[in-house]
Amino acid sequence: MPASPPRRQLHLNAFLMNAGHHDAAWRHPLTTPERITDPTYFQELARTAERGLVDSVFLADGLALWGNARYNALGGFEPLTLLSALATATERIGLIATVSTTFNEPFTTARAFASLDHLSGGRAGWNIVTSGSVDEARNFGRDEHLEHSLRYERAREFVEVAVKLWDSWEDDAIVLDREGGVYADTDRIRPVDHRGTHFRVRGPLNVPRSPQGRPLLVQAGSSEDGREFAARHAEAVFTAQQTLSDAQAFSKDLKSRAARHGRSGDDVKVLPGICPVIGSTEAEARALEQELTVLQVPEYGLAQLSGMLGTDLTGLPLDGPLPELPDERDINGNRSRFTLVADLARRDGLTLRELIARLGGGRGHWVVAGTAEQIADRLEEWFTQGAADGFNVMPPHLPGGLDHFVDQVVPILQARGLFRTEYTGRTLRDHYGLPRPAVPRAGRPRQPVAAGEPA
Amino acid sequence: MPASPPRRQLHLNAFLMNAGHHDAAWRHPLTTPERITDPTYFQELARTAERGLVDSVFLADGLALWGNARYNALGGFEPLTLLSALATATERIGLIATVSTTFNEPFTTARAFASLDHLSGGRAGWNIVTSGSVDEARNFGRDEHLEHSLRYERAREFVEVAVKLWDSWEDDAIVLDREGGVYADTDRIRPVDHRGTHFRVRGPLNVPRSPQGRPLLVQAGSSEDGREFAARHAEAVFTAQQTLSDAQAFSKDLKSRAARHGRSGDDVKVLPGICPVIGSTEAEARALEQELTVLQVPEYGLAQLSGMLGTDLTGLPLDGPLPELPDERDINGNRSRFTLVADLARRDGLTLRELIARLGGGRGHWVVAGTAEQIADRLEEWFTQGAADGFNVMPPHLPGGLDHFVDQVVPILQARGLFRTEYTGRTLRDHYGLPRPAVPRAGRPRQPVAAGEPA
Ligand SMILES: Cc1cc2nc3c(=O)[nH]c(=O)nc-3n(C[C@H](O)[C@H](O)[C@H](O)COP(=O)(O)O)c2cc1C
Ligand SMILES: Cc1cc2nc3c(=O)[nH]c(=O)nc-3n(C[C@H](O)[C@H](O)[C@H](O)COP(=O)(O)O)c2cc1C
Repeated sequence: MPASPPRRQLHLNAFLMNAGHHDAAWRHPLTTPERITDPTYFQELARTAERGLVDSVFLADGLALWGNARYNALGGFEPLTLLSALATATERIGLIATVSTTFNEPFTTARAFASLDHLSGGRAGWNIVTSGSVDEARNFGRDEHLEHSLRYERAREFVEVAVKLWDSWEDDAIVLDREGGVYADTDRIRPVDHRGTHFRVRGPLNVPRSPQGRPLLVQAGSSEDGREFAARHAEAVFTAQQTLSDAQAFSKDLKSRAARHGRSGDDVKVLPGICPVIGSTEAEARALEQELTVLQVPEYGLAQLSGMLGTDLTGLPLDGPLPELPDERDINGNRSRFTLVADLARRDGLTLRELIARLGGGRGHWVVAGTAEQIADRLEEWFTQGAADGFNVMPPHLPGGLDHFVDQVVPILQARGLFRTEYTGRTLRDHYGLPRPAVPRAGRPRQPVAAGEPA
Repeated sequence: MPASPPRRQLHLNAFLMNAGHHDAAWRHPLTTPERITDPTYFQELARTAERGLVDSVFLADGLALWGNARYNALGGFEPLTLLSALATATERIGLIATVSTTFNEPFTTARAFASLDHLSGGRAGWNIVTSGSVDEARNFGRDEHLEHSLRYERAREFVEVAVKLWDSWEDDAIVLDREGGVYADTDRIRPVDHRGTHFRVRGPLNVPRSPQGRPLLVQAGSSEDGREFAARHAEAVFTAQQTLSDAQAFSKDLKSRAARHGRSGDDVKVLPGICPVIGSTEAEARALEQELTVLQVPEYGLAQLSGMLGTDLTGLPLDGPLPELPDERDINGNRSRFTLVADLARRDGLTLRELIARLGGGRGHWVVAGTAEQIADRLEEWFTQGAADGFNVMPPHLPGGLDHFVDQVVPILQARGLFRTEYTGRTLRDHYGLPRPAVPRAGRPRQPVAAGEPA
């Protein structure tokens, strides 16, 4: 057969979460919630994703117990430690950890990612979040949460410092001249001497430059501030989108913002979330979705919804409509998720109960129930119509939901030429088709962190 | 043969450090400094230690590049990420990571150790340090280092908060009642509501109680403040001691301080460091020691010594005596190491060059060159004469120095009944013969953190 012409291919990230993304997954017999603090459980999940040639696995993170552990399998591993353990249990798949810029220090965070990048041979990625909840602030000496735009301001400077630290060792700084007694050429290891508004950091880092130079920078906030941040710094963007047209608009907006910062649209990969409920027939998929909905605990859904909407909904009739909601600009938490949920409820005229059911699978992410073929069709549609560069796959139940995706959906995407049939690169940057950043050489002036960013 | 009467046995910790503890190790053909950012190198070291039935491996840590990387193989992995990777490559050995209380937050640190404890099935240990250098402070927004006693004050409150967080989930908090829709009994997951001088932390932790309940608490500062801290909180203590009588005095002092805090002497294991230079004859060991001394870079040794002594020694003649030194109370860095080094130089009337040579192997720790038999004799002597509960083994060169210790010294200690011939427990606490702490049950008043500690 003649080789088919090279085709643009999509990227896949596997978003791992305890018993799965559906908030009732832990109650379903398909899941094993007793294993969520067992490292072999996550090793198996990561290996499944690697078997599917997926670009990366990803762990979300919060700095407080998110939601009420009475009604959901919450709590468990911290991402950097868990991914370090997964680094040695896998060979090719990328490892993306969430770390907040609001409650950490750039030196510590830059160093942990450099270490993970060495451990994994160049497979580290950082999902940069600003943390959205007052519960998190209260674990770090504050009574109130830092204001939304101030969090992003801190995040910008935080990333700027981290980049300087990763660049503080040149690639060839270690000369290892045993005879001459010179381990490193210290002209190629330079202090960063950062003195900014939020941070003063002298550097250099105490980790040699890692295989990727810098971890892949990922971002997941879709508010105005979040998009501006992503347009400057992010190389991959996770986002929750409900419809093709919303996703198209988001992608277009983000890429044109990136262009304003002197970057190409290809420099930032847009990855909407999808929660795929897979059945061997569509009816079977819908039945599984229904089984999960039936297992939802209304108190839990209502509390989660209250959090997302910045509005206390307790005591309201489940079969009634939503009350009056605040304005987006009064939301200090996850601003884009507020808007998405409020729009969804309005658009489809949902009762509280219906809204809780709709959010159960993906907390606002796109949920598709159907056969593997139907799901592949939808992915292809979004991918070819400018709504996505790839997808953040959020299985409703684990481990089975990931197995089904890997064994059933991936082969269809491959047969259509939409997805790789082998890993061709070694690093996470390779998988996403992104370059390894160069370090400005000593003597030459230091390059700006990203075009448009002050040096 | 009749069973021999049970005998008190010693504990062994393997202190892993890049190319080895001697500051010229990286130049010696026995070492592989090109592997210090290769995780398989550390996996092999940890497996060697495990083959030797050693209680734990340990990684030191600093939050800046320690010393001049021009002349030594400095920089490399961050301990928590590396030990997480080692957790899945080993089965029984304990994993002790250094984390500073001066530049971290209790929520983050408590969580990372709980996560490592889950990952390793109960093998996590925390070497609690307050950080000794202004270079570290400068990576965290400060121009000067926090004052010595204030650092320890912060450390005390830090550990108190961490303990509360580890105890915030009772052992049986997760009930996993799928039918009833109850994942956790939230009466058994309690906020900690800590409001102190340095920290305000609401809690609970977002990690269920880990196999050990709390990581093993280790401490390594021997100043007055350091000893008081250790007497309250530490379950194992690393210490640098030059002579049997100094080590005896230290151990006696520490155990009597512990007693004043209502603890038994057995609750705190004293582990002096030993840098064993092993040869098949004593002459061979001395020759190896001499080879390493010859490879020392004087500029490096002088800079390290300047740091330890809080005195700039650059330009002084190497074959001359030490200059006038400051008073111990004017040292804000590592106070006990200052005193040890100053005493050593005075006692033996050393020139700068001689002192640099004496410190090359262990930076002030006890260096013993000899046959495996001779080294076992000295360990037995210290152990049976009240100077040690075990040892912190610091091989001068790696990986070979650890192999030699495990293959040659350990069997002698075993033959003498001084060391285990198999792991009998599963957790790090088991290895050190320390109990798993209980959580105060709901309803009952919360227990004090440690006897003598305010609740
Ligand atoms: C797929 C996805 C994953 C996310 N993961 C996290 C996370 O792990 N931790 C977190 O604090 N926020 C997470 N977020 C939230 C965003 O990072 C961001 O903080 C939030 O959307 C608020 O930002 P915004 O107001 O700009 O939308 C995630 C969002 C998405 C879409
Ligand atoms: C075996 C050993 C290991 C140590 N490891 C570290 C370390 O990893 N990081 C650190 O900052 N200090 C380390 N120290 C230093 C002590 O923890 C302590 O900070 C130092 O001795 C200063 O405290 P002091 O003034 O109470 O003696 C170590 C000390 C010893 C004896």
